Parts: sequence; structure tokens; C-alpha cells
Amino acid sequence: MTAPELHPLNSTLIPLLGSWRGPGQGAYPTIDSFDYGEELNFGHVGKPFVAMSQRTKEASTGLPLHAEAGYLRPQSGGSVELVLAQPSGILEILLGSAQATEAGLVLDLASETVVTSPSAKVVRETRRRFVVDGDTLSVDMWMAAMGEPLTHHLHSVLQRVD
Amino acid sequence: MTAPELHPLNSTLIPLLGSWRGPGQGAYPTIDSFDYGEELNFGHVGKPFVAMSQRTKEASTGLPLHAEAGYLRPQSGGSVELVLAQPSGILEILLGSAQATEAGLVLDLASETVVTSPSAKVVRETRRRFVVDGDTLSVDMWMAAMGEPLTHHLHSVLQRVD
Repeated sequence: MTAPELHPLNSTLIPLLGSWRGPGQGAYPTIDSFDYGEELNFGHVGKPFVAMSQRTKEASTGLPLHAEAGYLRPQSGGSVELVLAQPSGILEILLGSAQATEAGLVLDLASETVVTSPSAKVVRETRRRFVVDGDTLSVDMWMAAMGEPLTHHLHSVLQRVD
Repeated sequence: MTAPELHPLNSTLIPLLGSWRGPGQGAYPTIDSFDYGEELNFGHVGKPFVAMSQRTKEASTGLPLHAEAGYLRPQSGGSVELVLAQPSGILEILLGSAQATEAGLVLDLASETVVTSPSAKVVRETRRRFVVDGDTLSVDMWMAAMGEPLTHHLHSVLQRVD
């Protein structure tokens, strides 16, 4: 099977494409801090979006922790949309932009809409930042939930594995 | 790697678990009817949700058509939530229930919330029905969009491949 040709709108996201793995740390005012291992994949099929899927595991036990799946939608004006589903019952629409850098990109996204299923904990707002520097991808996530304002929640530093 | 033990809440969804493949037909008042091939996967990691991912291809060319990814969240009272992201910029929260049958299940879900990213076409309402009968999975999807009321849009009949 040959790889499909990249859609031109995806060109700003090229540094993200592939599979990434590495350690992360989580913290939030309402919980104990925790360590995790993350696997993050960005793939395309030739259409004007990039599929994103993520899984984390507890650092000490290797047991599954979190997951998310969604799609980056680069727009002709240079902006980027991200629609994202999470097994915790949270759905996010994030808007932002990707800036090319010498060794990669900075993709900064803030939630426009967060909706939650009836049994889910309510999240009011999120921000996500992906920085590619060569074969290193740094991921940061901020969240407003549990009565807290937008607060830094997750940080991971991943290495390209594919 | 050993398979994780199934979370008890997932037990009503057991007939769905696995990979399915087969042909489908799409129709809508605003477009030409079309044929597609579908691949649909349902997997679990031992937690109280089932990850769902779908891809379709044009029947004639084999080119990628649609995709979606999300999570089924069975609840203790017997109801089921589905949170779903689509590369077309659509996010859906669906609510319904799974009924066991002699040879499988019927999972019927209706949208509680549909939100769309700024550049997406607006979908107002959806309904999705999954029927497992042995190694056959029938999928039907209804959609209210483009000014049309809730209208049957997709039908596929898949066979278990894994």
C-alpha cells in the first residue's frame, strides 16, 4: 500500500505527523500529582485533516489511564480546528494556529466549545499546546474544571518513534 | 501482552467487540446516493468504556471517504452514552440503550447534543442503530442536516473479521 499524497492544507502540520512516545506529569489543585507514559499518533489519509489518537498509562503500573481521539482541521486562512472525543465523556472543539519554527512547529489551541455527556464531570475550558523541535514533541494542557480557573494540568515530552 | 479483563459495565456490549468489515449504501435528499466499504472496530482496555473507530472508502475507487472515532460509555442503570468525533468537524453525544438478543444485541442511540466546528456543515440531530446477529453487524444512521428533518442516511452490513 502506497502512502497517500498529503493534502496541501496539511502542509503546516507535517512536523507533527508520525508516532511519539514518552513520559508525562499531571497535576491539578483537586488531585494528587501523577506520572504517566504517553503514546500519541498523528496520521493522514490524503484528505484535509490529520487524525490524532492518544493513550496514556500509569507510570508505575503500566495500566491504561486516559485516551483521546480526534481530528485536526487546518483551514485555508492558516487557522487550525481540533475536534476531540474522550472516554471520560468530554468533547472539545479547539481553535488556534500552527506556527512553523526552524526545527518544527508550535500549535496552540484553545477551546471554543466543551460539551460533556450526562454522566461526565464538567470541564468548562481547555487549552492545548504542541511544540515540535526536531524529534521531540512537548505537549501541555490546561483545564478549567471542578470549580478551578484555567490551570496547567498535563506536561509531557515525547520522542519520535515512527 | 495479555488481554485486559473486561470491565463489568462493558458486559452488555460484548457482542460488538472486535473488527467488522463490509459494504454500505448512503443516501440523502440533497446528494447523489453512493456505495462504500466500511471498517469498524470496537475495543476495550479494561476500563468502563469501549473505544470505537470507523473508516469508510469509496466502493469504486477505494479512496478514503469518512471516518469517526469515539467512546461508548455503558452506565450502571443500563443506558449507554456515545461520544463521537468526526473529521468533518462534527461532535456528537448520543444516549440510548443496548438490548441483548438471542444472537447478539441491538444498540439504539439518539443524539442529545451535536456541536460543529466553525468551518463545518451544521448537523442538528442524528440517530444510530447497531444490530449484532451472530457474526453480522448491521449499522444504520439517520441525520437531520441541510434543512432536512431526521432522515435515513447510511446503511451497512458488516461481517466479523477479528
